[in-house]
This record gives sequence, C-alpha cells and structure tokens, in this order.
Amino acid sequence: MAKRRGFLYPSFDIYGGAAGFYDYGPLGAALKLNIENTWRRFYVLGEGFGEIFCPAVAPEEVFIASGHVKEFTDFVVECKQCGNPFRADHLIEEKGFKLEHKSKEAMDKIIADAKIRCLTCGGELGEAHPVNLMFNTKIGVGKSKNAYLRPETAQGMFLNFSFLYRHFRERLPFGAVQIGKGYRNEISPRQGLIRLREFSMAEAEVFFDPQDKRHPKFAHMKSVKATLVPATTRDPIEMALGDALSQGIMKNEALAYYVALTHQFLTSVGIDNKRLRFRQHEKNEMAHYANDCWDAEVMLEKLGWIEIVGIADRSAYDLSSHMKMSGVDLTAMRKYDAPRTVEKIVVKPKMKELGQKYKKDAGEIKKALENADVGSGKSDVGSGMSEAGIEVEVGGNKMTIPREFYEVAKVQETVYGERFVPHVIEPSYGIDRIFYSAMDHAFSRTKSEDGEEYTVLRLAPQVAPVKVGIFPLMCKDGLDNIAEEIDQKLRAAGIECQYDDSGSIGRRYARMDEIGTPWCVTVDFDTLKDGTVTVRDRDTKEQGRVKIDELTGLFRSKLGA
Amino acid sequence: MAKRRGFLYPSFDIYGGAAGFYDYGPLGAALKLNIENTWRRFYVLGEGFGEIFCPAVAPEEVFIASGHVKEFTDFVVECKQCGNPFRADHLIEEKGFKLEHKSKEAMDKIIADAKIRCLTCGGELGEAHPVNLMFNTKIGVGKSKNAYLRPETAQGMFLNFSFLYRHFRERLPFGAVQIGKGYRNEISPRQGLIRLREFSMAEAEVFFDPQDKRHPKFAHMKSVKATLVPATTRDPIEMALGDALSQGIMKNEALAYYVALTHQFLTSVGIDNKRLRFRQHEKNEMAHYANDCWDAEVMLEKLGWIEIVGIADRSAYDLSSHMKMSGVDLTAMRKYDAPRTVEKIVVKPKMKELGQKYKKDAGEIKKALENADVGSGKSDVGSGMSEAGIEVEVGGNKMTIPREFYEVAKVQETVYGERFVPHVIEPSYGIDRIFYSAMDHAFSRTKSEDGEEYTVLRLAPQVAPVKVGIFPLMCKDGLDNIAEEIDQKLRAAGIECQYDDSGSIGRRYARMDEIGTPWCVTVDFDTLKDGTVTVRDRDTKEQGRVKIDELTGLFRSKLGA
Repeated sequence: MAKRRGFLYPSFDIYGGAAGFYDYGPLGAALKLNIENTWRRFYVLGEGFGEIFCPAVAPEEVFIASGHVKEFTDFVVECKQCGNPFRADHLIEEKGFKLEHKSKEAMDKIIADAKIRCLTCGGELGEAHPVNLMFNTKIGVGKSKNAYLRPETAQGMFLNFSFLYRHFRERLPFGAVQIGKGYRNEISPRQGLIRLREFSMAEAEVFFDPQDKRHPKFAHMKSVKATLVPATTRDPIEMALGDALSQGIMKNEALAYYVALTHQFLTSVGIDNKRLRFRQHEKNEMAHYANDCWDAEVMLEKLGWIEIVGIADRSAYDLSSHMKMSGVDLTAMRKYDAPRTVEKIVVKPKMKELGQKYKKDAGEIKKALENADVGSGKSDVGSGMSEAGIEVEVGGNKMTIPREFYEVAKVQETVYGERFVPHVIEPSYGIDRIFYSAMDHAFSRTKSEDGEEYTVLRLAPQVAPVKVGIFPLMCKDGLDNIAEEIDQKLRAAGIECQYDDSGSIGRRYARMDEIGTPWCVTVDFDTLKDGTVTVRDRDTKEQGRVKIDELTGLFRSKLGA
Repeated sequence: MAKRRGFLYPSFDIYGGAAGFYDYGPLGAALKLNIENTWRRFYVLGEGFGEIFCPAVAPEEVFIASGHVKEFTDFVVECKQCGNPFRADHLIEEKGFKLEHKSKEAMDKIIADAKIRCLTCGGELGEAHPVNLMFNTKIGVGKSKNAYLRPETAQGMFLNFSFLYRHFRERLPFGAVQIGKGYRNEISPRQGLIRLREFSMAEAEVFFDPQDKRHPKFAHMKSVKATLVPATTRDPIEMALGDALSQGIMKNEALAYYVALTHQFLTSVGIDNKRLRFRQHEKNEMAHYANDCWDAEVMLEKLGWIEIVGIADRSAYDLSSHMKMSGVDLTAMRKYDAPRTVEKIVVKPKMKELGQKYKKDAGEIKKALENADVGSGKSDVGSGMSEAGIEVEVGGNKMTIPREFYEVAKVQETVYGERFVPHVIEPSYGIDRIFYSAMDHAFSRTKSEDGEEYTVLRLAPQVAPVKVGIFPLMCKDGLDNIAEEIDQKLRAAGIECQYDDSGSIGRRYARMDEIGTPWCVTVDFDTLKDGTVTVRDRDTKEQGRVKIDELTGLFRSKLGA
C-alpha cells in the first residue's frame, strides 16, 4: 500500500536497490514534513529554542572528541568462505539465543557452541571484531582531510555552544535544535524504515546548570500521564510525571519535562497512547555519554516494541570532551547575586634572580610560577607549594623553585560568578521511525456501502498529506469548474487538496480514506442552487452542507491553524 | 553582522574551521526555512507537483548513468613543491587573464606563459588535470559498494520516474520536486555561501512530451516582465515573456513559464527586480546534459553578477541514460485519440520439431523466435528474418532457424498509443545563494532618532525569521506579563515572535530592524486602560494602536497566511 499509494519507494530500485535506503514519495514526503513541522511548533515556537543547520560532513576531530571514532561500533563476524559480513548480536538473537552481555567473548562462545554458520552459504564464521559504523569520506583533494558523515546532529549544537550561549544572552537553560540527516553504515540492515543507513532525526540539546535541573515550565506538565517502565521494577505503570518525580522514578524536573513534552508531541502526530511507553535504560545498555536515559517505545503490529525517541541526560560529557580536544573554553558563567570580593594568593617571580640561575629557562619558569596551584586566600599552601618552594614543570622536567626566587602576596579580587561546564539534556527523535509508527497506528479496515472491505488510514489531520479531497459529482454543467476553483482557493490558503473526478463518489471516498485524507468536499447540483457543498468526515462518515465561502475558515479551524 | 546576530556561524570553528562549510544560526535557519517553504508554496501547492525525498548517498551506477563520474570534474594544478592544489580556471582568472576555452592545453599554456606560481609557497605548478568533484564513500563493510554523495537532487526524480508517472495517473506534463542537500568537493572554496562543499538546493523536474512543450498555465504568465540577456545579442532587455516567446528568444512555453515563475518566486522572497536578470547560456558553457539553459543572476554588492537559479531543458538525456544503464523501461505513453488497429506478424514456433532437433536449447530458441524482429504488417521481412529463416542468439551463439521450425501468421492488434522518452525541463535553485542574495538586497542603513546610523534588514515579511518584536515599555505594573501573554498567543498561532525587555524602546526597535523584523508591538500604560498596544512598522516607521485581540488576525493577514 505504501508503495502503490506513493508513500514510500525503494531507493535505486531500477539498479536493484540498496538495503538501508528508502525514498519518500509525494504522500510520504508530505506526511514526514508535517511531522517535522509539528515538532518545530513544539520545540521552536513552543519552547523558544534556536533551530540551527550544520553540515552532515564533518572533519574527524569532531568525532574523535565525541567518542564516535572509538565507540560507534558493532561487532561483526565474517564468513570464512564467502566473506559475507553479519552483525554478531543480531545473528545470535535471530537464531533464538539470548545475549546478556554484548562482549566479543560472549558472542564468540555462543556462535562456536551453537555452531551458527553463514546465512548465505553455510560456511564457518570468523571471530567477532568491532567495525566502525560511520561513513568515511575526504574533504578536498591532494592533502585531503579525513571526514565522516555525522551519526547524529547533536555535535553541531555542541560545537556552536559559545555562539548560542551569546545568542541567548548568556542565560541558562536554553536549547538548540536541529532537524537533519544522520548516517550509520549498518552491517546488514533488514527492517526497512526502522534501520536505515541514511535517516532523519530531530534533536534538541538543552543546556542546564548542573546545580539546577529544575524546568521553568514543569508546573504545566506535572499532571501529564504516561506509561513508565523504570529500570528498577521493569514493570509498566501509568502515572503523572509530577508523581514520578516526587517518587524518585524521574531523577530531575528537566528529564520529566521532556518525557511529558514527548508524550504530547507523539500523541499529537497520531501515536496511540495505549501503544506508547517510556522505558528507562538499564545501566549496561546506556550509550557511552549518558547519565540517565528514557526511551519512548511504541508497539508495532509486526515488530513489537521499538524505540522511537531517546531522552538522555548526557551530563557534561560532550562539552568537556570538545574543550579538551580543541583547547577552547566552552563554559558558562553562574553569576553571583552580588559581586564578591575574594582574597587570592599571587606569586611574583623575581626575574633578575631567576635569570642569573636558570638562564634561558627563566621565562618559562616565570610563567609556571605565576600559574602554580598555591591555594586560596584561606590557606597559603596549595598542592603545588611546600616548605621547599614551588614545584613546576618546564620542558617536561619537574623541578622545585626555592622561596628566594619569588614573593608571595595576598590580593583582593572582585568576582562576579563562577564558570562551569553546562550539562545537556537531549531529547532525540527518529523521524523515519515516528513516520512508520504513525502509519502503523493509523492503519485500520472498514467496509464500504456495498460491503467491500478496504483500508482507512486514520492519520491525525495535522499530519495528513492531503487535507481535503475535492470532487465534482459529475464533469458537467460546470460542476468540475466549481470544484477546480475550490481546489485552487484552498491551495492558495496553504491547505493541501486533491482534485479527483474519476469513478463513483464511493470509490473516490475510499481512495481518500486509504491515504488518510480527513475530509472530502463534493460539488453537486444543489451547489448550483445554493452555493453549498457536501463535506464528509473520514472517521465519522458524517456529511453536512457548507457554504463554499466558509470552507477555508472551516478547515483552518479544524486544523488549528 | 551575520555572525553576531545569529544568522551564520563558521562550521567547526573550535577546530579551526573547514573551507566550504557554513552553519546556519537560529535566525539564519529560520530565514532559510522560510525561503524553502515559500518555494514549496509555489511548486507544491501552486503547481501541484509531487515532493519527494531521496538519500544523499547513492551507489555509483547512478552517477555513471548520469555522466557525473566522467564529466563532473574541474581542472586542478598542484604545486610541485608544497603539493597545494588550485582550481586552474579560478587561478588564471584571479591573476587577471581571460579564459575563452577551459581546455587543458589553453590553461597549461597561460600558466606557463604568464609564469603563474603557487599562491602558498611560490613553487612551480604542475600540469592541469581533471579531478572528480564528488565526495566518495562506501556502503556496507567487507564487500562494500562504491558510492558518492549526490551533486544534485535531480537523479532521485529520474530513478523514480515510473513510480511518479503512475502516481500522476500517466498524464504529462507532471512535475516532481526535491529540497535537499547536494555535495561538491570543491578544490579550494573561498566565496563563503556562494561556493559551498555541502549546500541546499530545490529542484523541480518537469516531464513533458517532446512533441508538446506548451504549458497549460502559460496564459497566466505571458505578461510577467523580466530582464532577459539572450545568447545572440548578450544585451539585457526587459520584456514580457509572452513577447520573448513569440519573438523566438524563448524556445518553448515550458522554459518561458518557469522563467516567469522563478521571477515571481525570487521577488516574493525579497530579491530586487532591478538587480535580477535571466541570462541564456552560450552553447559552449552548457552542462553536458542541457539543450537550452537560462540562469537567474543577481547583482551582489561585493561579488557582481552571480547565478542563483538555472532553468534547463535537459531533453531526454537523463531518462535515456538510465534506461540504457539499468535496462529498465522509463518511457511514457502518448495515447491515440482513438485506439488503432494494426496488423502484426507473429512467429509461432513448432515445439515438437524444435525439441527433436535442438534438445535442451529448444526452450530458449522458442523465446528468441517469439521476440525476433520480423517486421510490421506492411512488410513481412524484418531485420532478423531472411529467406533462410530467422536469426536468433542463444547462449551467446548466433544461429539461423529454418522455416520448417515455425509458422508465420498475420494478426490484428489494437494499439492505444505509442511509447516515448519524456523530455525534462529543470528549474534548479541554489538555496544558500538565494539566502545570501535576499540578505544582500535587504541590507540598508538608516538613522535612529538621535542621529546614530544603524543597519536595517528590509527582508520580505514572509521570509523574515522573526515576525514581531514584543516589548513591555517597562517591567512593572504587569506590563511585562501582558507582553509575555501576547508573545505566547502569537507563537501558538504559528507567528514567530521575540520578547525583549532590555534597553530603551529605541534601542529595541534598532535591534529588531537589524535582524529584519517587520513589526514591533509595545505594551505601555495606555494598554492597561484600553487594551490596545502600539504596532510599529519597520519600513515606514509608522505607529498605530491596535486592540490586543486583533493582533493575531492583523499579522496573519499582513503575512497572507
């Protein structure tokens, strides 16, 4: 149905296709775009976050710092005979074995013990070894730069942290979001839209002061109810997020707020609340950067429970790593209510004496002395200072500089605040999976008037690709011209329509039901008399007559636009 | 300004940046998105074309067929000393030489004669050689597939031609569009947004019957005036497109229609008509696939005339190439007004005789006989049939099957039409360049009340990133609460706002003018009395009082939404 009706096409089909890639056809692209725009209404208009766009190609430094060069791997086993590669954990689970720990040793043992062989030729399999999942490329020619296609959009927000912090006038919390492509060179993808090599994601990175993970708007959300599956009990329980927080199931307001917001967003694009739950990650399944993580999971007809959103507390991991790797300051300032005066110890090197004794090293020793850890005003002995003098490192050598080469003084300094590395809460949405889930949950069967069974896609009107089907009862007496005018008028008002004049009205209703169009307008002979048309509702099948002039307003208000 | 105000950030800045990449900050992303959505209003809602999304990574067959593996190259010279590469034509033009033909010989000669040396180290330069500009990568591990990042989105529409043709119920003309990323691994990009390695494009591929390049809606466009620069005269002339067509300056209605539509689109996103022209390509500058091509060019403050849109007649090039490469039929059907009856010759193999003589080859020979070229009803000798029999190829061997093994009969067949390869008209838009041009043409300077000069970005309201600035005159007596409520209400209605309570009202107006916000709302003490606020217009600087309840309606109607 998805292919026949123009929702999805297999990519590169005329060349035999390529696993892990899908094309969105005209209806699919419209549905996907409507989901993304609904997300923008929540996160950009609603939360006031800044949307940015960063390139999908990025130099390797970015992914060394983010940990992806080292950690973004899957274990692969290759057939010794035909060379075909398999993702080890998937292969083992497919064969019906349970894998508690995804270690090389555990996987090699199961494959050997159970004598699992190549799925293609039956050959013997080699040992499991990690393979990086990023697509690799090079920027420039000649002395080119190694680069990767990003596996997530998040790094763009971290790299721009300082620009964004200034844009938001140096106040926390603030958020930056990005909707864009991510890439993952899967070993052997086989689940269609659920496991793509090129996919769309919508990610928000919300920067918090680690000492204050309250959310300013949590009061609006505390009565939102969702089904939670805590890691402690593993039992699903429906509860208000305010209660989850007070009972300690949610670690902080920020996490609880984004679980609630995600619940609101997903149900607004048509995910069925009864087939939606939020599951907390177990300690050993968390990504290398995460501190706590809740996944939104949906129940799908053929695939069972599938993750579609991850809401992670990434702590200070990302900004700290980029600070270390780039040497650039990515801290924020926690302002004091009033400026404070603090006493500080400063070391004043005696240059003349230093020069005489240490010659060409004197300059470096001076710098090292000035930066030495000599304690605060309260104690004049820091870890770097002892009775013998100050320990410094110059040109890789440690040495102790005796007291005669410097003076120690106490000075008063005005301090306005202290610097810290912000923590990040990240709600990360898999758009293709949400698309697939919205289709899956909208799918239903109904009977036509003459008893024939057919598909109705009960998509939420806000995301339906076509909002209104427009039919002339017959192509005569100008009914078709009136219908075409209505089509043009609604399009000009930004409402997606589809004109259809072929087949019986029942057949045309069925065609619109099948692609999820919420309303249909029929121009008939009464239209010529009184200027009204029939408006039919997809779900209730009710029909009513409406003046042509009132159609734009009617559909706009139904769409909440 | 673009960086300070959050329009653009240099990508990977903390790692020293990478030429040819740019990040869009919160305001830039909003402006870019508004330009793309305006484009959708023209092409998807207005023209009724189908929008699709295809992956940016594609296997190499696609680009062998499209010609990009062979032809998508630039000539490069490398320094013999330091190895730095330069794009030969740019280097020559930068040094003030005119290059009539971009051949290897011509470029080598100029570089040698003029003794052009390495820009980095002054070393001697090697010979010019072609370098492919596609980013290369691999799909999968082990026996992986060679792949490229697409240099244009167009191929997606060609690969899906048959799906789309069916979606549009097999009627021409129809169009498919895509907004997405394109990649071009430039040798040494140096013009910021004008020459990016990763860029956004919006492309429409409109499929026509080559015998009929009329456009059904051309009548609406014939009086649209644009400045044209024909290849024949090279002189700019402003004229109506209907006249350009009747005078033969435009080759067909389809091209003329998309020039007119492009003119309407560009001016609606704020391109100044006086700094916009359409230039026809000279024969030798056309891309390898083009039949005729008109570029929309804009005059930019610092860069002169720059191409931002190309409107090309690609003829049958693309579909024909993919048919040849894939062996899949990508034709359309030209229906006859009435079905025709034609006489056809059919070959009926005698299976018993074939089996006795040819044994295991009999099956294949049967098939070959049935498909042999035996001529039409008018002449019963096709190229494959002679007195001796029918020549067939079986298992790579040619052989002649004598008459005794088959019968020839004439049959009547009803034919509904004939098949042909559609032609393509392609309007292709560079979104980043349009973004840059809209900023450039909107830029102006004005004076504040106290005589200070500052920047006003006169962006078209439809594309401005922030539509309304919302200010409380002071943060007291609840003025700030009222202002915040207005902010929330307009956001909920889909209107982007910015709340600002810091500095004088004049300073806040200036801040909004600088980012192109068309309107500002101020809540003052009169608001408490009569429920009205001041609405100020960016361009006229006029102010008027409006009831709070009427604000949503007012801005919606100003935005034409």
